[in-house]
Amino acid sequence: MRPVAILGIGQTIIDEQWDSSIRQIAARAVRAALLDAGRPSADGLFVGNMMAGILDDQNNLSALIADQSGLRGMEAVKVDAACGSGGAAMRAGLMAVASGEMESALVMGVEKMTDRHPHEVTAALATAADADYEGAMGVSFVGLNALIMRRYMYEFGWKHSDFAPFAINAHANAMANPNARLHQRISVEDFEKSAMIATPINLLDASPIGDGAAALYLVPADTLRGGLSILIAGSAAATDTLAVHDRADGLFLTAAYRSSQEAYHQAGVGPQDIDVFELHDAFTIMSALSLEACGFSERGCGVQLGLEGDILPNGRVPITTRGGLKARGHPVGATGIYQLVEVVQQLRGECGPTQVEDARIGMAQNIGGSGATIITHILRRS
Amino acid sequence: MRPVAILGIGQTIIDEQWDSSIRQIAARAVRAALLDAGRPSADGLFVGNMMAGILDDQNNLSALIADQSGLRGMEAVKVDAACGSGGAAMRAGLMAVASGEMESALVMGVEKMTDRHPHEVTAALATAADADYEGAMGVSFVGLNALIMRRYMYEFGWKHSDFAPFAINAHANAMANPNARLHQRISVEDFEKSAMIATPINLLDASPIGDGAAALYLVPADTLRGGLSILIAGSAAATDTLAVHDRADGLFLTAAYRSSQEAYHQAGVGPQDIDVFELHDAFTIMSALSLEACGFSERGCGVQLGLEGDILPNGRVPITTRGGLKARGHPVGATGIYQLVEVVQQLRGECGPTQVEDARIGMAQNIGGSGATIITHILRRS
Repeated sequence: MRPVAILGIGQTIIDEQWDSSIRQIAARAVRAALLDAGRPSADGLFVGNMMAGILDDQNNLSALIADQSGLRGMEAVKVDAACGSGGAAMRAGLMAVASGEMESALVMGVEKMTDRHPHEVTAALATAADADYEGAMGVSFVGLNALIMRRYMYEFGWKHSDFAPFAINAHANAMANPNARLHQRISVEDFEKSAMIATPINLLDASPIGDGAAALYLVPADTLRGGLSILIAGSAAATDTLAVHDRADGLFLTAAYRSSQEAYHQAGVGPQDIDVFELHDAFTIMSALSLEACGFSERGCGVQLGLEGDILPNGRVPITTRGGLKARGHPVGATGIYQLVEVVQQLRGECGPTQVEDARIGMAQNIGGSGATIITHILRRS
Repeated sequence: MRPVAILGIGQTIIDEQWDSSIRQIAARAVRAALLDAGRPSADGLFVGNMMAGILDDQNNLSALIADQSGLRGMEAVKVDAACGSGGAAMRAGLMAVASGEMESALVMGVEKMTDRHPHEVTAALATAADADYEGAMGVSFVGLNALIMRRYMYEFGWKHSDFAPFAINAHANAMANPNARLHQRISVEDFEKSAMIATPINLLDASPIGDGAAALYLVPADTLRGGLSILIAGSAAATDTLAVHDRADGLFLTAAYRSSQEAYHQAGVGPQDIDVFELHDAFTIMSALSLEACGFSERGCGVQLGLEGDILPNGRVPITTRGGLKARGHPVGATGIYQLVEVVQQLRGECGPTQVEDARIGMAQNIGGSGATIITHILRRS
């Protein structure tokens, strides 16, 4: 494959955007990425989205976004891997440019979730799980994660407040991100007293939904002339069983392990070389499991990285440096692209008070379902 | 891009498969393609599907199908361009192999539509149109096509029965296809007397929905050793406005024109070289518009090809040789893959009474929405 670079990024604020339709939100991110790249158009558009068919009655989304963005006629396609849709769209756009089929590609993610009743959104989110064997039993998505978290606490002896640092760090980092959904510092006390949703997951373990879009502009690396460039050094995806109960070990993210190992191999690096890691903290438990599967800690010890401050922007493994899913927000199909945009911002040195010093190599990991589809990207500044 | 070939094909019958879930139907097609290719696995799986999130409560479909097919862990992703999802999945799989990212790819399409009430299916199909400006006005998908057909008849002076040959040919050809949804010859009288759905579209203008899946196995062409091989000689996609009323000319499929011209260019051929053309006859009017946009007839004269017998298996432009959407059936997200499978069958000479003599070059065109996303592929036997 020919090497591919990220030339431009764009994003919208994540919020309840009741005055904007999904096409408008998406087009804002696309236009921002074109502006940042200094390009008028591209050869193709890859849209990550999960729920537009259910929540917006709009399944033919990619042609719509191309048109609304002023790019009528462009090849456009939607890529869906549930909450991992953004990362999956990135893989598709990357292969289009790497193959030589396209000389440039817009990769974006969008989700519009707040126009519907929360019960409808909960039902829509449950379609990320196994409909026949999980959904049909009445297990919601937060319920599934609660079962995983409870088992993790039982197996490894952690108590609920041990997960607080993941949420506290995310909320603190989001304070400096103007696009974040939540701007609100929280304490250990706030975390412990928060309303219970599905034991042991309470409100501050969980990420908020939202309306938002983010975009990237990809070009062949050899077309760049001087200046700072952001290379896609590693890109890999793997799957696991969709239903959690089908796994031999429900506490290990096999697809995270496999995709991160492959990405490390491609980039010629290991966990110790990653300066910043935007992981998929849909729930605090997922932060611990991702850190463990990607080799940043031993099995059952991911929580320790939070307790020891390793996950802070000046720590050993800075995570969720722009707020993560927890506080930046989780507009589902867009999340994987937000993660990549934020890694680019870190490698460009644009992150102000949460800037990781001299960040050169960053990783983003996007998870679809409860670990069923996991996509890992490693970016390198050069 | 390195050249890519189709090594194996698989398909299921299209029917009301109430005793099978979407994962089971999908896995049958995947296993059939693996068997046909003589391979135990592949590097990735690309799933074309439009409505599993709405009709099956199952959005995280690709990981599920990989697992059910005995391919747990494989990279897998869903690609969606409404009714053009199959063709779009083919593009994604092609780029994965052409880029060198994968040495083999399974590309498949699946849809499970008959477990729900027809009103729910009609609502789900309407999500292929513009939700805000078409769907919100109460226009169903058949209604949109009826408006196009009525305008076409008015502009070019055709009467309804002039469209009969498209349906009659499709039904006749399906008689020899064991996987077809409908095995029932029809006459001009049947066509004229059929129940009206949305004037002027009646039941025999429209394709039937169904449950079904089809799959292809892709490999780099240079890895094939002797024997007959089926090369992907051209592959292109283009978009148009999602809403029909936004087009300067609502009777010309601009995206079909653009994607077919690009595919012709890649393959070094023109319309006169196409031995068989599997077009997207969701409604009879779409056959006429596709034939015109792809250069097989002048504007407003596509209907003439039917009336003069040019579309028959032994005609000048054989179309829907296995029954087309009209009689083989239209399991939406799978249709684009069925078309490609059928072109491969023609190039292999496996089509019995509807075999096109010495077919060497075949084309498949898959349409998402009322012409919003159109993907054209040209295959060549060598």
